[in-house]
Amino acid sequence: MPDLEKLLSKNARNMRKSVIRELLKLTTQPDIISFAGGLPAPETFPVEDLRRAADEVFTKHAFKALQYGTTEGDDDLRNELVIFEGRGGVKLALDNILVVSASQQALDMMPKLFVDPGDYVIAGRPTYVGAIQAITAYQGRVLGIPFSPENDGFDMDELERRFGRAVHSRQRVKYIYVIPDFQNPSGICWSLPKRRALLEFAYRNELLIVEDSPYREIRFIGEHIPSIYQLDQEGQNRGIVIGLKTFSKILVPGARVGWVMAKPEIISKLVTAKQAMDLCTNVFAQKWLAEYLKTGKIYGLIENTCANYRAKRNLMIEMFKLYMPKRWDLRWTEPEGGLFLWLSLPKYINTDAMIHKAVARKVAYVIGSAFYFDEPEMNAMRINFSYSTHEQIEEGVKRLAAVITEEIAAHEAGPRGQTQAEI
Amino acid sequence: MPDLEKLLSKNARNMRKSVIRELLKLTTQPDIISFAGGLPAPETFPVEDLRRAADEVFTKHAFKALQYGTTEGDDDLRNELVIFEGRGGVKLALDNILVVSASQQALDMMPKLFVDPGDYVIAGRPTYVGAIQAITAYQGRVLGIPFSPENDGFDMDELERRFGRAVHSRQRVKYIYVIPDFQNPSGICWSLPKRRALLEFAYRNELLIVEDSPYREIRFIGEHIPSIYQLDQEGQNRGIVIGLKTFSKILVPGARVGWVMAKPEIISKLVTAKQAMDLCTNVFAQKWLAEYLKTGKIYGLIENTCANYRAKRNLMIEMFKLYMPKRWDLRWTEPEGGLFLWLSLPKYINTDAMIHKAVARKVAYVIGSAFYFDEPEMNAMRINFSYSTHEQIEEGVKRLAAVITEEIAAHEAGPRGQTQAEI
Repeated sequence: MPDLEKLLSKNARNMRKSVIRELLKLTTQPDIISFAGGLPAPETFPVEDLRRAADEVFTKHAFKALQYGTTEGDDDLRNELVIFEGRGGVKLALDNILVVSASQQALDMMPKLFVDPGDYVIAGRPTYVGAIQAITAYQGRVLGIPFSPENDGFDMDELERRFGRAVHSRQRVKYIYVIPDFQNPSGICWSLPKRRALLEFAYRNELLIVEDSPYREIRFIGEHIPSIYQLDQEGQNRGIVIGLKTFSKILVPGARVGWVMAKPEIISKLVTAKQAMDLCTNVFAQKWLAEYLKTGKIYGLIENTCANYRAKRNLMIEMFKLYMPKRWDLRWTEPEGGLFLWLSLPKYINTDAMIHKAVARKVAYVIGSAFYFDEPEMNAMRINFSYSTHEQIEEGVKRLAAVITEEIAAHEAGPRGQTQAEI
Repeated sequence: MPDLEKLLSKNARNMRKSVIRELLKLTTQPDIISFAGGLPAPETFPVEDLRRAADEVFTKHAFKALQYGTTEGDDDLRNELVIFEGRGGVKLALDNILVVSASQQALDMMPKLFVDPGDYVIAGRPTYVGAIQAITAYQGRVLGIPFSPENDGFDMDELERRFGRAVHSRQRVKYIYVIPDFQNPSGICWSLPKRRALLEFAYRNELLIVEDSPYREIRFIGEHIPSIYQLDQEGQNRGIVIGLKTFSKILVPGARVGWVMAKPEIISKLVTAKQAMDLCTNVFAQKWLAEYLKTGKIYGLIENTCANYRAKRNLMIEMFKLYMPKRWDLRWTEPEGGLFLWLSLPKYINTDAMIHKAVARKVAYVIGSAFYFDEPEMNAMRINFSYSTHEQIEEGVKRLAAVITEEIAAHEAGPRGQTQAEI
């Protein structure tokens, strides 16, 4: 065997294994309660409607659905996406849309298209781990921007300061990556003024914005806020926003279908990249989802999913209030949509170390440090509330609160948990 | 809009648009006879069996098939692949298999994992255009090796000579890319001695071999020859061969499911790469194909497909013999399997220029130059015989022969087709 390490590219040496995927393996024991995954609730899957839609494909489009398709994506599906996005307030033509093998493929395309080794992407601190992985796999770097204390978007002063410093030291910054709606992992939703401010910032500094919106439609409290894509479109329409969407959270993840919205000029570059990546997205699934969309049932489905997640989110917060130690330095976000909340613990608690104790207690979370490119915060965790049942949420929070309570008690008992008498 | 060109990565600037995909757009007029695509014959698609298999998935595995899956691939499918490959003489365990979003994704992974800018990959002259695209998208280069006059694999002297020269000038060569069974575009099948010789060459020079075998099972004349993967496994078992397989040519391309076979150590690196590329391959399609494979019908399907393509290939060669000008410098390969043959024309014919005349005559091919990384041969073309009907093959060859006959006549009439009298 030749020395594999010697043959590996610098890209490969720079790749990070997903902590989440590894964690998920830990948590496949059936008696564990997992708040770790980012899985949608299976009870929302419209199994019989999807069965009928698949059957329709065999009846009406079998030969087309089983053959190679175009790289741009199936026209039936793209036509349905024009209607779907139109209802959400986004005006699209077919050549504004590229169908992708779910958002992660689009996240891989962004650094492939824009990042040379050493280049920077601006992103939140914390941000989605899959975006960090994609960027590091092209030897890109992340310029992390903390969120404001109001949890309404980036701390814009920090953005100016850190970007200015990067430009001053001749670092090349290529685009801004944001998840304005119910961010993964924090659950934060950007306010309208912050969205406008970010767009202005991008205009002024000639940067693209990659707006990743897998959870946009999953708002269960409050009113929709225009996407940055919309703000650009309805305003100066400079076409600097690339929107990433997916069916993974609003329908089913197993179909692996998402879409990119952008100017035709950018779509055309993405098509060239995609040709070499997988030729085309799974044609059968495109026809299948197009048939499902034609029924118009997705709007009711999204409503039901929102109601389902609202109940689970409310229950989780109620349980947090009931069982978590009451302290100023233990707090959580209370998201108005999406699948996640972010739990911050006292500074001295290291959630990387604590995960083993939690798993021993049969409850799992994702360590907060996974969501940082560098200088991770060690005292936080991501909690998913969409996947577990109500019973599991109640029992899981009890278990998690017990682990945290013990950690705090151990710390307060002094070094190594020794009592005064022993010292 | 910021200057898009300024923001693009070097990778993106190096990307090549697929000539084939662009050509396919030219040829969507319904009255054109296209020998251009690499499409399998739709009449081979087992529509009703696949409908039943899909329905089984909804009945037996709906919640699993619609949810996220593991990056490695669905266990049911991988178990079926162990059986399928076992019948073909390859011994695999689950951890030798990674399910991919069809072969093109695997072709993207190879340079991602092994190629730094400027690094070389050894490949045939000509070779599959999608592999060239994937390599150039990471700024890799191709060290092209011509085939032997016997059409039984590389010209091994040229391989030694060109590799030696590359090493001498300190070029880094990372792996050898080959399609030993009925190569795309040439239809060439490597002989057993040449396969052994290539394996020895790779051992000696500490190189990996990427063996791309989308057509391996589509042999319609002669006996199967062991794959290079098998030769390594049954011999020194050094694990230097990475095998790429797909359902696109033996079942349906629209499912976009393929698999990589390799040592667990290599699979593990590929899994890390794939996490950042698309998390997992389309879960529904994996369960769906697993259900289909369980019926055991794929073996009969492959037999029928082989019979279908044998008849088309024979008809095409018969028509070539009937209609093509009879000359020593006009010849074609006569493949024992696969989907393509390679037609070489007199040196002075430029098939890039001729394609427009052919399309005007309502017949299409792929220009030979597309299959070269550098210094393309301009007087050849790839002809697909799997997709067209018998009537189309007969009529299409007539049209193509007429275009070629005119080109030859125009050349022989002197410069610019002027007659003696005019000069």
